[in-house]
Amino acid sequence: MLMIPGPTPVPEQVLLALAKSPIGHRSGDFTKIMADVTAKLKWIHQTTNDVLILTASGTGVMEAGIINFLSKGDRVLVGENGKFGERWGEVCDAYGINTERVKAEWGQPLDPEVFRQILEADTEKSIKAVIITHSETSTGVVNDLETINRYVKAHGKALIIVDAVTSLGAMQVPIDAWGLDVVASGSQKGYMIPPGLGFVAVGEKAWEAYKTANLPRYYFDLGKARKDAKKDSTPFTTSVNMVVALQVALKMMQAEGLENIFARHIRHRNATRAAAKAMGLELYAADSCASASITAIATPDAEKIRSTIKKHFDIVMAGGQDHLNGSVFRIGHLGFVSDRDILTAMAALEGTLQILGHEVSGAGVKAAIAVLNS
Amino acid sequence: MLMIPGPTPVPEQVLLALAKSPIGHRSGDFTKIMADVTAKLKWIHQTTNDVLILTASGTGVMEAGIINFLSKGDRVLVGENGKFGERWGEVCDAYGINTERVKAEWGQPLDPEVFRQILEADTEKSIKAVIITHSETSTGVVNDLETINRYVKAHGKALIIVDAVTSLGAMQVPIDAWGLDVVASGSQKGYMIPPGLGFVAVGEKAWEAYKTANLPRYYFDLGKARKDAKKDSTPFTTSVNMVVALQVALKMMQAEGLENIFARHIRHRNATRAAAKAMGLELYAADSCASASITAIATPDAEKIRSTIKKHFDIVMAGGQDHLNGSVFRIGHLGFVSDRDILTAMAALEGTLQILGHEVSGAGVKAAIAVLNS
Repeated sequence: MLMIPGPTPVPEQVLLALAKSPIGHRSGDFTKIMADVTAKLKWIHQTTNDVLILTASGTGVMEAGIINFLSKGDRVLVGENGKFGERWGEVCDAYGINTERVKAEWGQPLDPEVFRQILEADTEKSIKAVIITHSETSTGVVNDLETINRYVKAHGKALIIVDAVTSLGAMQVPIDAWGLDVVASGSQKGYMIPPGLGFVAVGEKAWEAYKTANLPRYYFDLGKARKDAKKDSTPFTTSVNMVVALQVALKMMQAEGLENIFARHIRHRNATRAAAKAMGLELYAADSCASASITAIATPDAEKIRSTIKKHFDIVMAGGQDHLNGSVFRIGHLGFVSDRDILTAMAALEGTLQILGHEVSGAGVKAAIAVLNS
Repeated sequence: MLMIPGPTPVPEQVLLALAKSPIGHRSGDFTKIMADVTAKLKWIHQTTNDVLILTASGTGVMEAGIINFLSKGDRVLVGENGKFGERWGEVCDAYGINTERVKAEWGQPLDPEVFRQILEADTEKSIKAVIITHSETSTGVVNDLETINRYVKAHGKALIIVDAVTSLGAMQVPIDAWGLDVVASGSQKGYMIPPGLGFVAVGEKAWEAYKTANLPRYYFDLGKARKDAKKDSTPFTTSVNMVVALQVALKMMQAEGLENIFARHIRHRNATRAAAKAMGLELYAADSCASASITAIATPDAEKIRSTIKKHFDIVMAGGQDHLNGSVFRIGHLGFVSDRDILTAMAALEGTLQILGHEVSGAGVKAAIAVLNS
């Protein structure tokens, strides 16, 4: 049982779709599937912008989202309060983009006020983009994208480029309503399919920037992808079976409805956090900035808890990344997760704590039930 | 029934492996699978070099194979006698690599003699790499990699970078025996799994070049991939289900044996070509340079034949690419293809020709049988 922030559990009917014999990626049958999948992706992205499908992990897609719209030496603000924020700064470094890292401690959210000040001070409009990780997978912190984006819009010139890898399909990312220029996400998260595909939504302002952006790229050239997407195709062979599986997963998501999906993720976050608190565990992120997709718990017993819950209950939770290794474990509750799964995980966590010598009162499961039933 | 040069048919047990619930990409269970898959990949690559797994199509992996070992302005020879040779030149252009295209007409093999002359004339050793497409998927022509590589070795300085996308796992590409520096391939070809993964073998000489190569890259940084491969992992989330499926496919390939696999592909090429000739069809590539993976047939009826064989017999063959569209069709016979499949395809092709008003004598199937039974 996977309770990590990706890969997330995959529904049986999606797995069975994955196991169909591949069809030709240039066939009429596949073109029809691409058209349907793209329409459904636009629905989940809440946008009429292009949503392009790339065969790559979330990192590759986010790299594409950065390098297609910027040039060498461009001034860019990068929000950095976890591993993924750091990574997008490294991508910029690799391409000679001139970054200013706007930092917060791991576990804390980015301060929108800092972005406001830097953006307002930029009267020459030299800032070309602001790169924000929406839900920071390494810490379970959600950054206040809506507010930061408002300051970017007030600036007028800069693009907003968003890592929505663990938020899209799980939390509100209303691309058109907020006017987000570039939004990247990955298949093994909210989309309920295995890893191997990524998605990037690109708006008109970003396409304008594309015309003069000069960083080198070929496989990740989104202009090529856009051109072929107009014909419901891809410039290079896409992961055919994954697209077929995605169609089934998106159909399930449409049946559930966007608002219901988002409400479910919030309910599961609240239940997990209430249970953890009741068990006496320390939540790594504050309530005010807690991601609906991942809950990180700070404890020196992190690795002991992970190995015990795996051994005794066959549940996989994620460890802490980089300097958090050993002092944090992370519970993924995004994608194909039910109320029952949350209860299962919380009951097993209580069982694990008991095995490790903690006194267990059943308060964790009780607290989770109270949230789920409220 | 797919008879295109990728995606190729996938065995049932591989499809079922693909449909298993994903496991964590950082789990001990997955690490063991990665170790086993990597060992098997080295076997099929006939190398002790690193063989790295990337989540990307063949184009992405080949781009990685080019940009990790070269710098802006480097002088590079690119063999160009089809769509894929052209593509690698375009990748070089995108990164500011200084190419000399060594061309042959589409349908003709590259002339090794031209490479010899240019390489011998380069007494200053300014040529940094020679990029060759081994089996040119667009034309069914196999280039004389062994001879060209001999001239590259005589030059001493240049790397040989090989697109083996439709040759690896189907035809002899003995990396260590020939001393090939960089060899790229894709999952949906000889490997008998769907598209979505790519592989690149990298030798010591290429890793030396990596140290000073300065082209920008992040997701495709093979140094990162090598570092994590030493721990049987990948720097970014890999396509877990595809790797699990690959393990099953590689096990089947080991059971068949490399020599048997190569002999089967040659037999199927010979049977297909003998049948086509007996049906009065014109083979686009000469016998002397015919790929064991793909047979291209030149006929003004190409599109009529493709649509008829699809409609009446549900067999998918590939069209011609770029300027060959409409005048060539291509039969893929690589990967999971049996003698029965070849007979089926040839019988259906005879049936198709009859529907299109040609006189059919059964000579095609007879010729195929003669080759298969010889």
